[in-house]
Amino acid sequence: MDLKDDERLDDLLADEKMKIIQSPSAFAFSLDAALLAHFANVPIKRGKIIDLCTGNGVIPLLLSKKTKLPITGVEIQERLYDMAVRSITLNQLENQIQMIHADIKDMPGHYGNDKFDYVTVNPPYFLTENVNHQNQNEYLTIARHEVYCTLEDVVRVCSQLTKSGGKVAMVHRPSRFVDIVTLFRKYKLEPKRIRFVYPKREKEANILLIEAIRDGKAGVKLLPPLYACKENGDYTEELEGILYGEKQ
Amino acid sequence: MDLKDDERLDDLLADEKMKIIQSPSAFAFSLDAALLAHFANVPIKRGKIIDLCTGNGVIPLLLSKKTKLPITGVEIQERLYDMAVRSITLNQLENQIQMIHADIKDMPGHYGNDKFDYVTVNPPYFLTENVNHQNQNEYLTIARHEVYCTLEDVVRVCSQLTKSGGKVAMVHRPSRFVDIVTLFRKYKLEPKRIRFVYPKREKEANILLIEAIRDGKAGVKLLPPLYACKENGDYTEELEGILYGEKQ
Repeated sequence: MDLKDDERLDDLLADEKMKIIQSPSAFAFSLDAALLAHFANVPIKRGKIIDLCTGNGVIPLLLSKKTKLPITGVEIQERLYDMAVRSITLNQLENQIQMIHADIKDMPGHYGNDKFDYVTVNPPYFLTENVNHQNQNEYLTIARHEVYCTLEDVVRVCSQLTKSGGKVAMVHRPSRFVDIVTLFRKYKLEPKRIRFVYPKREKEANILLIEAIRDGKAGVKLLPPLYACKENGDYTEELEGILYGEKQ
Repeated sequence: MDLKDDERLDDLLADEKMKIIQSPSAFAFSLDAALLAHFANVPIKRGKIIDLCTGNGVIPLLLSKKTKLPITGVEIQERLYDMAVRSITLNQLENQIQMIHADIKDMPGHYGNDKFDYVTVNPPYFLTENVNHQNQNEYLTIARHEVYCTLEDVVRVCSQLTKSGGKVAMVHRPSRFVDIVTLFRKYKLEPKRIRFVYPKREKEANILLIEAIRDGKAGVKLLPPLYACKENGDYTEELEGILYGEKQ
């Protein structure tokens, strides 16, 4: 296997047989990505799936365990795109997962509108204002901050790519929650399932999972909360089930 | 004490010394009202409070335990207004709580805009469409369905009555959540604190508590979930604390 620079080969948590290339200086996937892949009710039999801001391809890799449908990943940073391509080859998933090195904002022009049945996205969370990029790692800055795409860009592109009746699933920070649902409505994505993740009991939520239907009817369900950790700091059984495989 | 028709005198849960007039056929307060009164961070020392859609006055009565500020309750149904007035007298709170028999939509014209520091509201939850009012009790229909005011009317009036920097607290159903935050934004009420109430573990949320600041900055906190019942159906200790008095 061809590892570059400070890259390492990690087990992908959900399945010990799956491997993923990560790099401390460029990109290592977060809990958020694993939670989104678990939360997303992707279609199984028909349709096409696209994952925007895919990073090292963690979400397409995890989704390949849930569906046999073709999955496209889009990543703007060439180094991360390259890591994703090699991880796909390593796991022999070239027939299911395709990676594109591109700006997500160009995808509606590339594919046309209304082409996908399910869109997933784990976008950059942080506003660029008040951030001194000079002092930061460029790869991580682009992955985490709204440098190349704003939240509105992400929501608009998700909406454009999704068929009427198709679904979009996003993970984000609860503090942006009102912005997110307002933008979803603006772009005709009607939130239908929301789940908040809490670091532990008695704490405020720190992760938001949201699924919307393109042109859907109003009316949303608030799923039971997910607690990440027990009082002693260990992962809860529910989170372990999500990360390491659930009893079916 | 002057009780009419099928009225009864109930203990108000938070304080056994407080009584409230209820009627099975006209209005009996719900868990939702008690939760809203507990959730609302009303000012203590300065300002004025108004409770819209006040019913039998349960929220002003409960709030009088948290603040010494003057509280106004507005109720459109004369029979409920009359129950509220008598409960206020019964509890000797005439100097703090004033009831108005009026349509909330007329209140901005009556008081002028930007007059209150805190607005609470437990509005009718249900759309009037698809409801056969002929088969229902009129008092309960008006209290529960959007007969005399829509959700947008409620949010607009809340916004008009609230000073810039003042707060609005509402209880509603989670299914209307996206409508609520969209309307809040439209009327310059920025959600800042949200809490979902779950009937028990592993169930979807069935009550939404939301507090917004008039002209506030974007950014919302998702408070820890509140569970109403334990697995055996008993109230949780947290809910008992809210209803029957917490250890301070």
